[in-house]
Amino acid sequence: MITNSRKVRIEWGDCDPAGIIFYPRYFEIFDASTAALFERALGLTKFEMFKSLEFAGWPLVRTHARFLKPTRFGDDVTVDTSIKFGRASFEIEHKLSLKGELCAECSEKRVWTICDAGGALKSHPVPDAVLAKFKAP
Amino acid sequence: MITNSRKVRIEWGDCDPAGIIFYPRYFEIFDASTAALFERALGLTKFEMFKSLEFAGWPLVRTHARFLKPTRFGDDVTVDTSIKFGRASFEIEHKLSLKGELCAECSEKRVWTICDAGGALKSHPVPDAVLAKFKAP
Amino acid sequence: MITNSRKVRIEWGDCDPAGIIFYPRYFEIFDASTAALFERALGLTKFEMFKSLEFAGWPLVRTHARFLKPTRFGDDVTVDTSIKFGRASFEIEHKLSLKGELCAECSEKRVWTICDAGGALKSHPVPDAVLAKFKAP
Amino acid sequence: MITNSRKVRIEWGDCDPAGIIFYPRYFEIFDASTAALFERALGLTKFEMFKSLEFAGWPLVRTHARFLKPTRFGDDVTVDTSIKFGRASFEIEHKLSLKGELCAECSEKRVWTICDAGGALKSHPVPDAVLAKFKAP
Repeated sequence: MITNSRKVRIEWGDCDPAGIIFYPRYFEIFDASTAALFERALGLTKFEMFKSLEFAGWPLVRTHARFLKPTRFGDDVTVDTSIKFGRASFEIEHKLSLKGELCAECSEKRVWTICDAGGALKSHPVPDAVLAKFKAP
Repeated sequence: MITNSRKVRIEWGDCDPAGIIFYPRYFEIFDASTAALFERALGLTKFEMFKSLEFAGWPLVRTHARFLKPTRFGDDVTVDTSIKFGRASFEIEHKLSLKGELCAECSEKRVWTICDAGGALKSHPVPDAVLAKFKAP
Repeated sequence: MITNSRKVRIEWGDCDPAGIIFYPRYFEIFDASTAALFERALGLTKFEMFKSLEFAGWPLVRTHARFLKPTRFGDDVTVDTSIKFGRASFEIEHKLSLKGELCAECSEKRVWTICDAGGALKSHPVPDAVLAKFKAP
Repeated sequence: MITNSRKVRIEWGDCDPAGIIFYPRYFEIFDASTAALFERALGLTKFEMFKSLEFAGWPLVRTHARFLKPTRFGDDVTVDTSIKFGRASFEIEHKLSLKGELCAECSEKRVWTICDAGGALKSHPVPDAVLAKFKAP
């Protein structure tokens, strides 16, 4: 199973008057980390996925997050992201750590969508070509 | 039990290339809705709470959210917020709806904190004066 | 000339570790204030403008802002917005004040655009129907 | 004169329903680019600057930006940042480009501040130790 690990710098503007990250910024980081996982597996940015795959986005159905230790501006955190595929959906796990210590973790359930004839989003099985890339050694 | 309901306009800049709200913006809305609930009960903004209460913030321990229907720019959504107090923590529920239809819901667990002598945050029982305001009819 | 004035609450999450607003949040406020001015004049949200006008957005060409006094969470600021139309562009002025004191001011130059046959944005004269609404007493 | 160049990925969540970057996100990028320039020159993150220098922040006095070509999610843009020091202030120039083409440029005037005895911010000459680092070959 392909996973992805990336470094993210927590910036001054991500932090609140308590001097620590304002937690909605974590969800921005997690959303980008989901795209980064697919980019690593497929070799396509999300922008390129729209162009070359049966794909119209992966709306979030639910998310659950725990915050264990705060991070602050200047911290270079690591986000480790993994995935489990269902038929037309997938579950993502993000673990955000600083110097080896887990600071936040988040799970997401997202649906794979395509555009129907009328232009509306509908869920659709994750394409086999996508699944195959994640199974590659 | 005091609850709070407020209207929020979803803005162009809250939305992503799919034309719907980028979900981290919901957490910004929910965070402000938690502050609005306390402001309604106490008659104090969060800024004033820091000045006049034993209070150094309410860091988030965990949050769980479900997204049922998308909202988009121009939508005037309603956020209904309620609270259950523990000893040194509290649970918040937000229900975000558009024209009476539930679009997203979120629960938060937060800890009441004060500054210890060294300036570090530590959890602390929610002050009785705060609890009393929420019990007022 | 129609102008618009609106109240905006500065939120905790808009502020940085200095305890004052993180200035990119001002541009979010100004962008929404431009839309609010048009909504006041036309009776249409920006979403509705896309549906019912020759309109594909108003990309920003340049902006200039001065920051005179900081604002902080809990502040209810007033944003006064005015407009001067060119042929295919317009200039916006925002003045953001707290209790009557000017805190920030911003000018924007934006272009009125429509979609050409190939789906690309191109500049286009501001529709007469729009201009007429702004001239209405 | 030390300058800094850094790569930034434009993310899905930075973009608006037009599919291009929502311009307040540029100011977040520019603010972080200013900190990155100082980090390159001083070898200190902004967090460390607060700890080890006579420094209480660099509030923005004014900013001016021009937007020449849009960028979109998946773009890896380059931000080139340079500085000119005054006595108690400095001017920053950011040039943001994609594949060698200038997309946006921004100038900032910021003031060097320290905390006075009462805890309020006041402007202060940029410390010689800071200037020396920027003059180093």
